[in-house]
This record gives sequence, C-alpha cells and structure tokens, in this order.
Amino acid sequence: MLLRNATVATMTNGPAYGLIENAAVAVEGGVVCWVGPETDLPTDHDIPGEDMAGRLITPALIDCHTHIVHGGNRAGEFEMRLNGASYEEVARAGGGIVSTVRATRETSEAELLSGALRFVDALLAEGVSVIEVKSGYGLEVETELKMLRVARAIEGQRRVRVKTSFLGAHALPVEYQGRAADYIAQVCLPALEQANAEGLVDAVDGFCEGIAFSVEEMRPVFEKAHTLGLPVKLHAEQLSNIGGTQLAAEFGALSADHVEYADESDAMALAKSGSVAVLLPGAFYTLHETQVPPVAAFRKHGVPMALATDCNPGSSPLASLLLVMNMGCTLFRLTPEEALAGVTRHAAQALGLDDTGVIAPGKRADLAVWDVGRPAELAYRIGFNPLYRRIFGGEG
Amino acid sequence: MLLRNATVATMTNGPAYGLIENAAVAVEGGVVCWVGPETDLPTDHDIPGEDMAGRLITPALIDCHTHIVHGGNRAGEFEMRLNGASYEEVARAGGGIVSTVRATRETSEAELLSGALRFVDALLAEGVSVIEVKSGYGLEVETELKMLRVARAIEGQRRVRVKTSFLGAHALPVEYQGRAADYIAQVCLPALEQANAEGLVDAVDGFCEGIAFSVEEMRPVFEKAHTLGLPVKLHAEQLSNIGGTQLAAEFGALSADHVEYADESDAMALAKSGSVAVLLPGAFYTLHETQVPPVAAFRKHGVPMALATDCNPGSSPLASLLLVMNMGCTLFRLTPEEALAGVTRHAAQALGLDDTGVIAPGKRADLAVWDVGRPAELAYRIGFNPLYRRIFGGEG
Ligand SMILES: [Zn+2]
Ligand SMILES: [Zn+2]
Repeated sequence: MLLRNATVATMTNGPAYGLIENAAVAVEGGVVCWVGPETDLPTDHDIPGEDMAGRLITPALIDCHTHIVHGGNRAGEFEMRLNGASYEEVARAGGGIVSTVRATRETSEAELLSGALRFVDALLAEGVSVIEVKSGYGLEVETELKMLRVARAIEGQRRVRVKTSFLGAHALPVEYQGRAADYIAQVCLPALEQANAEGLVDAVDGFCEGIAFSVEEMRPVFEKAHTLGLPVKLHAEQLSNIGGTQLAAEFGALSADHVEYADESDAMALAKSGSVAVLLPGAFYTLHETQVPPVAAFRKHGVPMALATDCNPGSSPLASLLLVMNMGCTLFRLTPEEALAGVTRHAAQALGLDDTGVIAPGKRADLAVWDVGRPAELAYRIGFNPLYRRIFGGEG
Repeated sequence: MLLRNATVATMTNGPAYGLIENAAVAVEGGVVCWVGPETDLPTDHDIPGEDMAGRLITPALIDCHTHIVHGGNRAGEFEMRLNGASYEEVARAGGGIVSTVRATRETSEAELLSGALRFVDALLAEGVSVIEVKSGYGLEVETELKMLRVARAIEGQRRVRVKTSFLGAHALPVEYQGRAADYIAQVCLPALEQANAEGLVDAVDGFCEGIAFSVEEMRPVFEKAHTLGLPVKLHAEQLSNIGGTQLAAEFGALSADHVEYADESDAMALAKSGSVAVLLPGAFYTLHETQVPPVAAFRKHGVPMALATDCNPGSSPLASLLLVMNMGCTLFRLTPEEALAGVTRHAAQALGLDDTGVIAPGKRADLAVWDVGRPAELAYRIGFNPLYRRIFGGEG
C-alpha cells in the first residue's frame, strides 16, 4: 500500500504534529515501511499508489480509558436528577454505580458484547484502532471475569485491538460495606489471580478516592500486580487529593487517570516514574467539576498527557474521541496538538504500547485519513466526524 | 405506511413526551393520518405494516438556528488562541468574524453549497428534517443574497426543508466602522428588500449586542420586516442585557435567541408576545460563558424553550443536535423532555411552522426512529447517535 499526495501528521517528537506536507506513506505487511516527502520517495516504492488528494493522515486514534463493557444504562437516573430528585432519592430508587453493578451481573456475555459493540462501532467510525476496556462492575469474581472475557471477545467481532484492565477495586459492593480490606482480600485479589491465569489481564487498575479505596487499601492490589508482572494504572485525584498519584508513581504506573486535583509534586512524581496523565474531560463536563487538571505543571515537568472518553454509563456516557479532543481544548485549554498527541502517541504510552500511536517505519500501519485542511480542525469541530478512511494493520 | 410495535413520543402537549407505548403510526400522502395504541388501530388501517421492534419514534428533529452556510473555517484561530495568542493578536492575524466575512465573500456558490452540505449531512444522520439557515457573513448586498441562494439550494440537494433568515445586521463590516446607521440604511435595508423580492427570505434576524447593533439601530430593520410582512427573530442578551429581548417581543418575534442575560421581565415580555426562547449551549460552551439563561423564569412564565446548534465557524463549530440536547441538560439543567421539545415542537414554533414538530393527525410525516429504550436516552448520551431511520414527508 502506498498513500500519496497527503499531509501526514506523524506525531513523532519534533516539529508541530511531526507534520509533512506533500507526503507519502508506504505500508508492507501491515507495517509502515516508509514515510516522508513524496519527492524523497525511494524508487523501489515508486508504484502508482493511491492519491489522497491532499487529505490529512494521522495515526489511528487510541481510546486508553473506557468502561465500554457494562450492563444497562443510567438514562432514567439522569432524568430523575434533572427533574429535581436528590442524590438520596436517586440512590433509594436503586440508582448510582450500584445499578450498573446489578445490571452487569444480570446481563449475559452475549448481551454485554452486543451492548459494547454499539459504542465500539461509534469509536471505529472515528478512526480508532485500540480501545482499553476495564472490568469493575462485577465486584465479585465471576462477573469481573465475565466482563474481561467480553472485552477480549470484541477483537473477534471487529478489526480493533483491545487492551484490558482489571478494575476489581472500582467500588465497594454493598455486601462488603465497611469491610474494604476484606473485599480486597476475599474478592479483588482472588479475581485478579484467576483472571490473570486465564490471560484476561493486560494491566491492573483501581479507583483511589474518598468514595472508593484509600491508598493503603489499594496497595495490596498493586503489590499483587507486581508479583504477577502486570503493569498498573490508577483513577487518582478525581474529586480530591488523597495521594493516589504518588502511589501510582511509586509503582511505576503506566498512567494516573483523571488527576484534576493532582498538584505540582504529583506532576513531578509522574514525570519521575514515566507515567502518563490521562485526562478525562467527559466526566469533568458531566459532573460539573470546576477544578481543572494541572496542565501547566504537567507541561513544565514533561508529563505526557493523554485524553480518553472514560465511556461509562454514569459519569461519562460518551462515545466520541473527537469530542473528547475538543473538550480537552475547550475545558482544559490543551492545544490542538496536545489533544491529538493525547489520543495517539501518549494514549499508546498509557497502554504500554510502543508499536502504534505514531507514523514511523516499523510501526503498525494503523492510520486515519481525514477530510480536513489542517490537524487543528480535528479538535476545533464539535460533534462532527470528518473521517474519510480507517486503516487497521495496513488494511481498510 | 404503517409503523407498528413502537413507543411513540408524540411531543404533543399533555403527559410526559406525549408518550404512547405499544403504538402505531399510520401515514398517507406524506402526512400522519393516525397515531395511537396499536390495539385501537381502526380496521381500515389494519394492514401488515412494519414492525419497529419496540423502538422509539419521535418527530424528526429541527435545527432552528444555524449559520451553516459560510466560507472557510476558523481552526487556525482556535489553535492560535490555545497557543496563547491574545484576541488582539488573533485580530491582527485577520481572525474573528472578519475572516469568515472575507472567506464567504470570496467563495463561490457551488463551494459554499458543498461546504454546507457536509454539516447538513451530519444533521440529517441524526434525524433532522428542517434546518434554519441565516445569511450574515456577506455584509454587502450581493454576498447576503448569495448566502440565501445557497441556503435555498440545499433543498434541491437533500431531502430536507430549509427556512432562511436574513441576517444583514449581524456585524458591522470594517468599511462602515463607526457608521452603523449608514450601514443599515445603505446596505442592510436594500439587501433585505432585494432578497425578499427574490423570494429568499422567510424571516428577518439581527444581532443586538454591544459588539454588534443597538436596539435603536435594529429598529428600522424590524420596521422594514413588518412592512414586508416578514416575521422577525433576534440574537439577544447573549453577552449582556441591552434590551434586545424587549425589542423582539415588541415586534412579536418568532424567537429571541441566546438570551443568557435575559431577566424575568424579559421572560414575561416573551410570554406575552408568544415568542420562543432559543437556547444555544454550543456557543455558551465554546465561549466559556458562565451566565446561564433564566430557565426558571422561562418555565414560570410559560415561555417555550428551543435548542439549536448555532452551527457557525467561530463561536459554535457544532453539527450535532443530539449533543446540543445533552448540553441543554448538562449546562442549562433542562430536563430531557424539555430538550426533546426544544428540538421538535418548540423549534418548529421558533420557525413559525405549524405542520411539523409533533406526531399528530394532519402533521407532516417527518419522523425519527431510534434504537433506544426511552426518550431520555437521546439527551443522556454524549457523542453517540442511535438513529435507526429517518422518515421525511412519509418517505425513508
Ligand atoms: Zn474510569
Ligand atoms: Zn447565531
């Protein structure tokens, strides 16, 4: 495959967007073998190729934080709240994460899969090639494993790569109220061991927050992950600063996610551990948060920033990574280049992937071709999808 | 056409959403001839029909405020600002509305049309049947007319209805700086007369704001509209309260649009004049506004609220009416039912249309069929389109 007459945003480090005008991309065996100005094209690549008519080629997008596998939806609760119900009334009516846990436990694997595929398809239509999928609505061994099996099954249904994160420490189930340590020991760790034994786990995640687990409650989960040789990541500092980011950094986490309440010392810790800050503006928007993540500190200390949908039925029922790019710019004041790096190079890093996220020789030919005049248009538009073509592993 | 086994949100006044479960809709000659519980279906309609499998049918959506015809885009300016440029620097680089005016003047009708159709197509994919389109980037007679001709031409290219608004009083062109009254007299009024003579004008609009036109500068435009028998509407109270809403009400406007800074007396004036308050959360979001429209006052005084994209290249480069519904709920705290009424019944009213916007006998069969379990899901999801089928004038 040879794509000619394109503008290519390689997203490699260097000048803005790693942009090459009048460029060509050559692909062989599903891998990029050459990219550069068309005039420099080696003669052995000098085949007719396909005219991209000046369109923009970027790395395919990567959604590095989703809860896309889940039962039910929370539209009823959304409506109750807007009709004036208090959080207590919503809870009494069975709302909140409890309702998603109940629905996920009750839903069959086939139904969970078909539900997830609706949102997967929406992402693929925007040029996405890799989707991270978390467990965490089971909170019991069997359902945590079921969610991860469904996540794995997505790859059999669509041309996409899935990276799973075990999120047993997402919330404390009602049956363990007041016994967080027991839940971790009796459910979370055994579920992690079993899921890992079945090859279902690519990373281990948790939710470190006043309403979820403390740093000390999370620690045995991360220690188990280390024992198993699994990388970790963490929902940290979303609603308050309780030290999750420091814990994540201590364990060399792939990423700390949300991080609105992280401070400069947290940014320094992430820089030192080589972790990515994954920003999730969809949840910020939905929850009417006002504390924005410390973008200036991340820039100052060289912490890579990724962006993701956080696609979930409660705080971020969002299935558009392009919209997340706009939200990253509009709500968090990222630059359009940071937004694009956030869903390509840095998103790959947040998943521990070094074979994708940039356009360079030797990397997977996961590409997105866009009907836009310049890369900034991808973040500038709101609720509009200019994808022209998605190429996955050199095909498409 | 007979659609059976559906949930129908008729959006007629009455119980929530005018919802009918296990419903059927019968269509003849492009018009709804019967809607109700399937068990009540008259025997003369008792043909096999089409099984909607329990899907939701709503009126097709209506986008009652757009600037969808325009030259160029402002992604470069968006990027400059996020890279730290001041408004003065952006202006010196030729940014702002001036750049859209220049691009619109320089762009051919064919190119303006193909540019607009990209966003029209995005709206149609969400079940939209009527789009309002404004002029206002010409600010000279010939280009104002060109924009309206392009707007009219959309109907020849797609199965959609277009309602035009003449918006000569959108901004003061640089060549008339400091001479607003001269611009109105020498350009705006002659352009309006000529456009109306050519049948290009369905309504007359203006932008009443400190940075645009005062109430007294707008008055002759509305007087001319009255003389010509054209209804009026107005961009009012977006950034400050300078009396535009009262002016609109005085002229019995179809709508006052934006209205973030409207107060309770403005709400009372709109109620008395039977005008719709058109809320535009996309611009509010993009401009980082904090003053929300007086939704409680609109409710209290019975002012119908519509929602629209405001699709434009500067303050709202947005082409998703579903996203606008979510923004209306999330940013302005509308209920999901108000959001749906805002893009159906009330949007029709804002355009002076009484043949669409609800599902009832005698109304146009402009319908949207959705893969959702309940109407609230339409506003609940973010960046996700569950449209199953769009029916326009009984076809589709
Ligand atoms: Zn999450
Ligand atoms: Zn407008």
